[in-house]
Formats: sequence, C-alpha cells, structure tokens
Amino acid sequence: MKKFLNDPKQYVPDMLKGLALANPDTLCYRPEWNLIMRTDAPRSDKVSVIQGSGSGHEPAHVMMVGKGMLDAACPGDVFAAPPMDFVLETTKLLASPKGVLHIINNYTGDRMAFDMGREMAEAEGIDVSTLIVDDDVAVTDSLYTIGRRGVAGNFFVIKTVGAAAEQGADMDELLRIGEKTNSVTRTMGMALTSCTPPAKGSPLFSLGDDEIEMGVGIHGEPGRKREALRHASEIVAEMVDAVVSDLPFARDDDVALMINGLGGTPLSELYLLYGEAHKQLEGRGIKVRKNYVGEYCTSLDMAGASVTLVRLDDELTSLLEAPAETPIRIF
Amino acid sequence: MKKFLNDPKQYVPDMLKGLALANPDTLCYRPEWNLIMRTDAPRSDKVSVIQGSGSGHEPAHVMMVGKGMLDAACPGDVFAAPPMDFVLETTKLLASPKGVLHIINNYTGDRMAFDMGREMAEAEGIDVSTLIVDDDVAVTDSLYTIGRRGVAGNFFVIKTVGAAAEQGADMDELLRIGEKTNSVTRTMGMALTSCTPPAKGSPLFSLGDDEIEMGVGIHGEPGRKREALRHASEIVAEMVDAVVSDLPFARDDDVALMINGLGGTPLSELYLLYGEAHKQLEGRGIKVRKNYVGEYCTSLDMAGASVTLVRLDDELTSLLEAPAETPIRIF
Repeated sequence: MKKFLNDPKQYVPDMLKGLALANPDTLCYRPEWNLIMRTDAPRSDKVSVIQGSGSGHEPAHVMMVGKGMLDAACPGDVFAAPPMDFVLETTKLLASPKGVLHIINNYTGDRMAFDMGREMAEAEGIDVSTLIVDDDVAVTDSLYTIGRRGVAGNFFVIKTVGAAAEQGADMDELLRIGEKTNSVTRTMGMALTSCTPPAKGSPLFSLGDDEIEMGVGIHGEPGRKREALRHASEIVAEMVDAVVSDLPFARDDDVALMINGLGGTPLSELYLLYGEAHKQLEGRGIKVRKNYVGEYCTSLDMAGASVTLVRLDDELTSLLEAPAETPIRIF
Repeated sequence: MKKFLNDPKQYVPDMLKGLALANPDTLCYRPEWNLIMRTDAPRSDKVSVIQGSGSGHEPAHVMMVGKGMLDAACPGDVFAAPPMDFVLETTKLLASPKGVLHIINNYTGDRMAFDMGREMAEAEGIDVSTLIVDDDVAVTDSLYTIGRRGVAGNFFVIKTVGAAAEQGADMDELLRIGEKTNSVTRTMGMALTSCTPPAKGSPLFSLGDDEIEMGVGIHGEPGRKREALRHASEIVAEMVDAVVSDLPFARDDDVALMINGLGGTPLSELYLLYGEAHKQLEGRGIKVRKNYVGEYCTSLDMAGASVTLVRLDDELTSLLEAPAETPIRIF
C-alpha cells in the first residue's frame, strides 16, 4: 500500500484535523465525536441538516459542511457507519427549535446507526426527521444494502435541502424538497480499479488488467457485471443508458449532468467523459442545463467514475443555484 | 493501461471538447489550434494573459482560463510543448492594444515554442512580454530544464497577474507583480507512483513497492533521490524543510500554503498532508494565512503531492483574494 498516512487508525482523525485547520473560521472539529460542524451552527432560525456515513468518500460528507449545505457531518471510520452514540451527540449538539434533519445514503449500517441515534435523541426531546437517498440504479439490494444504494446523487439532495434550510424552510418543506430531489436523481458508476482501505493495506477486490466493474458500489461492492475494458464512448453509453432508462428521462427533459470521479481518476479523463455524456444526451434530445464535473462522492483511490442525472424544474434549478459554500474551493 | 479514452491521439482534443461543452458561456475551444480561450477575450482595455504547456497537468492550464485568471491556454499534447505556430495563432487571436503576456513554466521545450511564437508575433506587430515561473526547489537543471522547473506555484503567478490584468494594470506592472510572486514562491513535490501517458500505455518510470521519488518533476522526471516510503509526517517534514530553507522563509513570515495533489491522490490524503504541513510550519513560527488544498498542477494519474509556500504581503494577499472564476468549481 502506498498512501500518505501515519497510523492507519488515525487516518480519519488526521484528515479531519487538517480539514479544520484549513477552515478555522467556518468549520469546527470535535474529536470526541469525530464530527465536523459549522462554527455558526446550530441556529434557532433554521433546521439543522446533518449527514453521516463511512469515511473514504471525500468530499462527501465532511467537505460538504458549509453555508447552504450541511450544518454538520458525522463520519465513521473508512467505509464504516458512525457509532450510534456519535450520531446522538451530533444531533444533540445541532439541536434547533426547528428540528434536526438526518440525510442518509441508503446503506444498512448507516440506517441502523442513524435510526438508533434518532430514537435516543427523540427520547431527549429533540425533533428529528430522516431523508433517505437511494439514487444508484445499478442494483436493487446489494452486499451492504436492502433496496438501492445512495451514492453521488446525494450531493443534489444536500444542495437543494441545504439551500431551502438556509432560507428558513420548515421541516415538512425540507422533506418535500429532499424527497422530490431524490425522486428525480439517478446514478450509475463503474470502476477501472479497486481501492485500498488504509487499515486493510491491500486492494479491496481484484480486477483483471482488461476488466471493469460496471455498476460498482462506492465501497467496492459488486455491481451488475464484470466487462472488458473498452472505449470511453462505449462505457459512457452503457452508464447513460442505465440512468436514462431508469427514471426514465425523456426527450426535452431539462437535466443536470454530473460526472463524478471516484478518487483516482484525473480531471482530464473526467472532462473527456463529460464530453461523451453531453453529446449522447443531446443525441437523445435531453437538454443538459447544468453540469458538475469533479469529485463529489469517491471511493478512496479507486479509478472510475459515475454519471448522475437530475431532472430539473424551476424550483430545483433555483435551489441548485442558491449561494453555498464548502471547504472545497480553488481560490 | 486502464484509462477513460477513445483514441490516445484524441485524448487532449476530447478533453478540450468536454471542457468547452461544460462551459459554453465562458469558454471557447478552437480545435484548429488546440486552444481554450475566454469568450469575452481579447479586450482592448486589458493585457491578454496566456499560458501554454504540455497537457496532462490539468487543471493547469486549460482549466485556469476565466475571469481574473488566464485569457487563453495553449496546450500541447500530453507532456509535450505546444507547436510554435499554435503559440503564434493564440497570440494573434488574443492581440490587445495593451499587449499579450506569455506565462511559461520553465521547461526547455515550452520556452523554445514560446520564444519562437513570440518572435513571429512581434514580426506581425504584436507587443508580447514573457514571465517565467521556476518555483521548484528540487533540482537545478533536470532532464527537460535548464535552471529550475516551473510547477504548482504557477497558480499563484496566474492568480496575481490575472487579478491585476483584470483591474487594467499595464504590462510593466504585470511583469513586476508576476516576477515578485515568482520570487517569493517555492515548491517541492514527491511521487508515490509513476503516471501512465495515454500514448505510451505503460508507466513512465518504475518505483518499488516501498519506494518514493522525492523531488519528482511533473513529467515523472527524476528528483533528488529515491527514498523508502515512510510516515506522512516525515515526508511532509522533508518537503517543508526543502521549501522553507530555500527562500528562506523565516519566523513570523505570513504565508500561503498549498498542498497540491498530483492526480491520483484522494482529497482525504491531501487534507491529512495539509494538517501535518500546517502544524510543522506553525512550529517554526511561520504564519499560515491562506491555504489551498486540492489539484492545481498534476501529472496525469500519478499518486503524490507537492507543497508550495508563498510569502505574503498586503499587495499579494489582495490580489489572491480578488474575484476570479475558473471552470473548476463544485457548484
């Protein structure tokens, strides 16, 4: 294994320390519960929006904390759900009279931790609601999931819900917006290579030199099938077809198109994929109105990418375009 | 080789097409000269700022074109300088009464192409000036360079010069600002792995499973030495020491700190490195006032990172904080 790390057990805390040091005005790191929160949270005039999941998916979710996005993120260790008491403590710290909203990617471990954390928080008198994200069309039920998995599309749920929360929307309105966003968001991913968790020290699975995993999960879990490596245009065609046929997206739909890198794929390749996906969608008469190219939800150092489409209307477009800030910035 | 591509010969044009499709309002792709330019360039009230270099370093430089940054980028093929006639045509397209400024990373191939392109442009009556970036402290003279190499520090030269150009500064002022920025900027990089150019199809060099290349160049060229892989804190200490002792940076200096990923290193590791570098600098009494964590100047899919420091004063801080836009954005 060749990674930048000191002690594999300290991989996540070391990353969180660095993240907080880089953002002293906006982010606060609470090592006792492994959490990152906004320095101005909780606010009594807004619902607190929290996401938790295993680490290793950065920028999801600790680097999605900021104005118009999450109020806090409660990560577990690499590819492991956060402990339920950390969920509880995060919820208590973020308690607001307008309530606390948990956004959860649909993985069984995360749902268990958040369900129990929620029950304990409710027992202490905190109003908690839950939004589930399950945008991955690759498989229904998988190694770690009952139902569909939640992957890169969670960015859009965080963005629309975060914007509305910042504008003062109440819990019912946030649930409506979050469920609506999730209902029009579809993702399909694939891997060129495996990834290597720091504590394991070796690749999580093996792929042949000419093999790809179509429909891979963000923890390296199996997708639809192993296939032969082939031209980018053909790989994109398969992902686009899986996504478009699922909702389904139709001619004259306005969409947002995301090409998400899985951690080890350079920007040059992501823009090459973007060009292919954009052309293929336009060829189907689907109108790409907004685009997102980069890393949004990764799988450590995995080489690979996912395609996400969101069907837009005026409300979602406006929420996607509302002001927001994250630690991820170039300037 | 496992990469997203169609025809290796079309790797760069395919990426540029995708980049332009993703930014139709702000960027224009001119395939006949392989260039990316702002849709609002040239402007008669500002110097046109151009950078060119081999491709494979994205977001440098084609994804650094935008308001307050570059007016155009003129890339060559992967790791190859642009042809001189492309430099000439880019310069002619961007001709402004206030002149055209070439920013060049100090690599011999790039300098030759831009020197000749400049001479031909001057023969056609265009006023051209040149800024050289040579921030890499690793080696003096190397495989492709006489003198020091220009690497990730070029972001800071582009940012300060781009901001001043946007504010209407004339050529002499831009040369002063650019030379000043370069004179207080120092970088040191290292590789955990090699990179694989699409046209070669195999790694550019080989590193043992427990080996790193300290001081690596952004084309995989040798650095100072091969060393054993060790803790991130020790790797950072060596890079920080190389950079700090070179200028030298001193106690109570205000600095900007950049941790730049080389393409295959995930954000989680970059923030872990940031935390180490920040602590070590503070331990030396050097004040980290601004920070940049992410990919700025890469080497295809190489796993590795570089540390850049810039000694700040009020003028540079103000130029770094001036408004700017690039295609690289999360929202």
